[in-house]
Amino acid sequence: MKENNMTYDSILPQIWPVTTVVGLGLIGGSVALRLKELGLTNQVLGVDANEEHGKIALDSAIIDEYVSLDEAISHSQLIIIATPVNSIPGILSNVLNKTDRQVIIDMGSTKAGICQSVLLHPARGRFVAAHPMWGTEFSGPAAATTQSFIGKAAIICEAEKSDPDALQSAIRIFSALGMHILTMNPEEHDLHTAYVSHLAHITSFALANTVLEKEKEEKAIFELASAGFESAVRLAKSNPDTWVPIFRENKDYLLDVLNEHMSQLRKFKSCLEKDNWDYLHELITESNQIKKVLDRQN
Amino acid sequence: MKENNMTYDSILPQIWPVTTVVGLGLIGGSVALRLKELGLTNQVLGVDANEEHGKIALDSAIIDEYVSLDEAISHSQLIIIATPVNSIPGILSNVLNKTDRQVIIDMGSTKAGICQSVLLHPARGRFVAAHPMWGTEFSGPAAATTQSFIGKAAIICEAEKSDPDALQSAIRIFSALGMHILTMNPEEHDLHTAYVSHLAHITSFALANTVLEKEKEEKAIFELASAGFESAVRLAKSNPDTWVPIFRENKDYLLDVLNEHMSQLRKFKSCLEKDNWDYLHELITESNQIKKVLDRQN
Repeated sequence: MKENNMTYDSILPQIWPVTTVVGLGLIGGSVALRLKELGLTNQVLGVDANEEHGKIALDSAIIDEYVSLDEAISHSQLIIIATPVNSIPGILSNVLNKTDRQVIIDMGSTKAGICQSVLLHPARGRFVAAHPMWGTEFSGPAAATTQSFIGKAAIICEAEKSDPDALQSAIRIFSALGMHILTMNPEEHDLHTAYVSHLAHITSFALANTVLEKEKEEKAIFELASAGFESAVRLAKSNPDTWVPIFRENKDYLLDVLNEHMSQLRKFKSCLEKDNWDYLHELITESNQIKKVLDRQN
Repeated sequence: MKENNMTYDSILPQIWPVTTVVGLGLIGGSVALRLKELGLTNQVLGVDANEEHGKIALDSAIIDEYVSLDEAISHSQLIIIATPVNSIPGILSNVLNKTDRQVIIDMGSTKAGICQSVLLHPARGRFVAAHPMWGTEFSGPAAATTQSFIGKAAIICEAEKSDPDALQSAIRIFSALGMHILTMNPEEHDLHTAYVSHLAHITSFALANTVLEKEKEEKAIFELASAGFESAVRLAKSNPDTWVPIFRENKDYLLDVLNEHMSQLRKFKSCLEKDNWDYLHELITESNQIKKVLDRQN
């Protein structure tokens, strides 16, 4: 993992007149809004299998036209793919088959399978494999916001496999979005996101289910919920259509990380069972270190 | 568990001229600030085994005097106990031994052990066993805030064992703090808080430890942490001196709830191991119900 200090190539276009965004959800919608707001593009063509999403995106001026993918490709200089990760390889290969000049960037939350799927494609160089590390627990175009991405990391994988102009376009775009850019290989990416993103989703989903299960007997239990509980289960509001494909793509790393988490939980359980309060105090004191780490980021 | 609709007794004092707060942490400090701000008391005497806390509370005008417990009792009409739960029975019995007229309210996060400890005390009626369901991940008097308690639940246990004037004083105080009052028995309280508070702390501590463990090899892993991760580990910043006594007091219920949570996690794990994506989708869809439940509270 390294911070990227590449300088911009001065022959790069300052703007991409027409941009296609494939997948008009939280991420695609937010990118579309920001690119227009920042003047990096003049027109956004929207592509989405879900017509309802297309309509909402059009009505809320996230996109200028709702079109088919084939129609969009030929009219665009920049193509952003922000669909669920399982559909990215198919869309990406379709796009790469039909282009030799556009810049194509994906926003998928897993990277190994996607990079692998186009490794030998003759137009591989036009593609930049990326993951902007931003999101909320909400989904769909109605959740899109112009206050997105700022101050967060954008990861680019296999940077050396992208054509220099495509790579520098991606760097310019993520920088304009207010992000700092990190490069790493797809395997590193998938392992690290299993730790700092995917696992936190699993634990929140499971925490919500534990308490919801209890609520079946005790209707009023949530009367007692405080801000701390809400914070811990916030990610449990996340969309299964987004997250099942991510967990599926990253299942091997995620299983390793989930096993480690369960062994951490077993340490807490063992302290309770054995009245080992000193060790419990140590475990909590260790976990308090998260404070320093997170404060360093802010 | 029931909403309390008792009316105030008009012969009750409108204010408690001198209030003692024992335990000058987040909760005790915040109560002291609010009682004075709301004009419910004129003077706050602070008691804390930690002299540094006493000094901070005095310097930041949370309390008017830093005194010994014995000195404080005889001068006060109202005594609030907001120390770690393991120290409450001893302090409470000491206070009850020396009073027959003051109103004494504790703020402890567990209730069965505390209630049990004074069950047969001749002055039991002066005591109101309470738990205001508010807190943050910060601790100590410096974390005290006047923006506390509002809109949250205050639980009163064994209301029938408190003298009517003591109970109504507590109701008036919690209502003035902007809280709604629920009554339940101590066992119900401890079981419910194991679900909606204590478990969320354990899962956050364990999540933080899982990722911190990984950080020992991969220094830059937190570069990737996003707001979702921060939300999920927020409670892992909480003070072990507060939480070890709570977990210790509530270990039986907490172990049951932790076992249930681990069996929920095993369902997710099994889906990943067996490629059971449909069931994983169901589990996440179920957990999304948390949205409705929490929105109902806000």
